[in-house]
Amino acid sequence: MPHRQAVPPVTLNRLSIYLRCLRRLRQEGVRRVSSQMMANQYRLSAAQIRKDLTQFGEFGIRGVGYEVDKLCDRLAAVLGVDHTRAIVIIGMGNLGSALACHVGFNNDSFSVVAGFDNDRNRVGATVGHLQISHISDLPDVVRRRCVEIGVLTVPAPAAQANYDSLVEAGVRAVLNFAPVRLKLDSRVHTKNVDLSINLEELGFFLGNGASP
Amino acid sequence: MPHRQAVPPVTLNRLSIYLRCLRRLRQEGVRRVSSQMMANQYRLSAAQIRKDLTQFGEFGIRGVGYEVDKLCDRLAAVLGVDHTRAIVIIGMGNLGSALACHVGFNNDSFSVVAGFDNDRNRVGATVGHLQISHISDLPDVVRRRCVEIGVLTVPAPAAQANYDSLVEAGVRAVLNFAPVRLKLDSRVHTKNVDLSINLEELGFFLGNGASP
Repeated sequence: MPHRQAVPPVTLNRLSIYLRCLRRLRQEGVRRVSSQMMANQYRLSAAQIRKDLTQFGEFGIRGVGYEVDKLCDRLAAVLGVDHTRAIVIIGMGNLGSALACHVGFNNDSFSVVAGFDNDRNRVGATVGHLQISHISDLPDVVRRRCVEIGVLTVPAPAAQANYDSLVEAGVRAVLNFAPVRLKLDSRVHTKNVDLSINLEELGFFLGNGASP
Repeated sequence: MPHRQAVPPVTLNRLSIYLRCLRRLRQEGVRRVSSQMMANQYRLSAAQIRKDLTQFGEFGIRGVGYEVDKLCDRLAAVLGVDHTRAIVIIGMGNLGSALACHVGFNNDSFSVVAGFDNDRNRVGATVGHLQISHISDLPDVVRRRCVEIGVLTVPAPAAQANYDSLVEAGVRAVLNFAPVRLKLDSRVHTKNVDLSINLEELGFFLGNGASP
C-alpha cells in the first residue's frame, strides 16, 4: 500500500465512492461483483476501478470479480473508516445545523457528538439529535467524548480563534468551511472546504456569455 | 489559452484563489505585485503562481511583477466571472438557507435570485434577502431572471426530479449537493459536491487509530 501522504485526494474520493457502492451491494445481499458490474450500476469506469484497487493490493479474479464483504472491510480499513469517529461542530448557524443533521456526518464512520456556539440565544436549542452547547464547554467535551475531528462553520473573522481552540482541546483533524486561509498547526490535519469555489468552476465552463 | 475542458479543476481552484487575493490587493490600493509577494502574503507557492499564470498568457516582469488591476480583469474573464450570474436554489432547508446567505454565492460574480421549496410551510418565509417561492414557479423565474445556475439542496430521493425540472426550465449548469449519482443531461454542466467525502479524506489521514 502506498504511503498515506502519497495518495492523491482524487483517488481517495473514488475509493470513498466505491465503498459506498459496495456497502449498498452488501445490504442488497450481493456477494460477488466484477469491476464491470460496479461500473455499469453506478456509472463508473471499470478500468479505473481495477487500477485503483490494484494499488491497494486488491485483485479481482477474472470471471469471478471481487468478494463484496471482504472488499468493503478492506476499503473501510484503507480509508480509516472502520470505526466511528466523534466530531464536534463549531458555529451552529444554518451551515453548522445542516452538517449536524447530514447523513454523511452521522453514519458508521462518523458521529456528530456536539455542536457549539458563542451566541447565548442559540445555546440550549435543539438541532436534530443535538442540544447546542456553549463554546466554553469545548475542551471538556473533546476530552470526555474522545473527539477526533472538529468542523468549523463560523464566520471568517472568528475562524482562527476557534481553530486554535480546537487544536488546544486536542482534536487531530479539522474541516474548515470558513472562507479564510488559517495559520495551521502542523500536528493537526486540516482540510479547507470552499463552497463557492465549486460555483466558480461552473462559471468557467459556462464561459463568458458568448459561447455555451 | 488551453481549451476549457482541458484545464484541471485543481488549476481552476487555484486561479479562483489568486483572483480573490488580487481583488483584496486592489481594494487595498496595491497596483503591482510579484508572485513572491502574493505567495508570502497568502501562503501560496510563488513557482506555482508563475506556472499557472503563464499557462493563461500572463507573464510577470522580473523585478516589477504583475499589474494587479489588469490581472484581476484577466483572471475574472478566464474564470467566466466577469459578469454576475443568476442562481436559484432548490430545497430551502438548512443547507439551502446557508448557501442563500453565503458570501461566495452573493458577490460580483454570482447572485442568488430565488430559493424554492415544495413545503407549503416554508414557502413565503424570508431567508436573508429572499422570500422562499413554491417550486411550481421555477420555469417562470428562470426565464424572467435569466438564471444560469441551479443549486440542488434537496434530499437524495427528490434530487433527480428536481434536476430534470432545472434542465427543463433552461439552466445551463447545476451544482448538486444531494448525495446521489444523477442521470445527467449532456447539455448542462453539472458538478457534484459531496460534503462528507471531505470527512472521509480526513479519516484516511487519521489512519486506523494506532499511528497518528
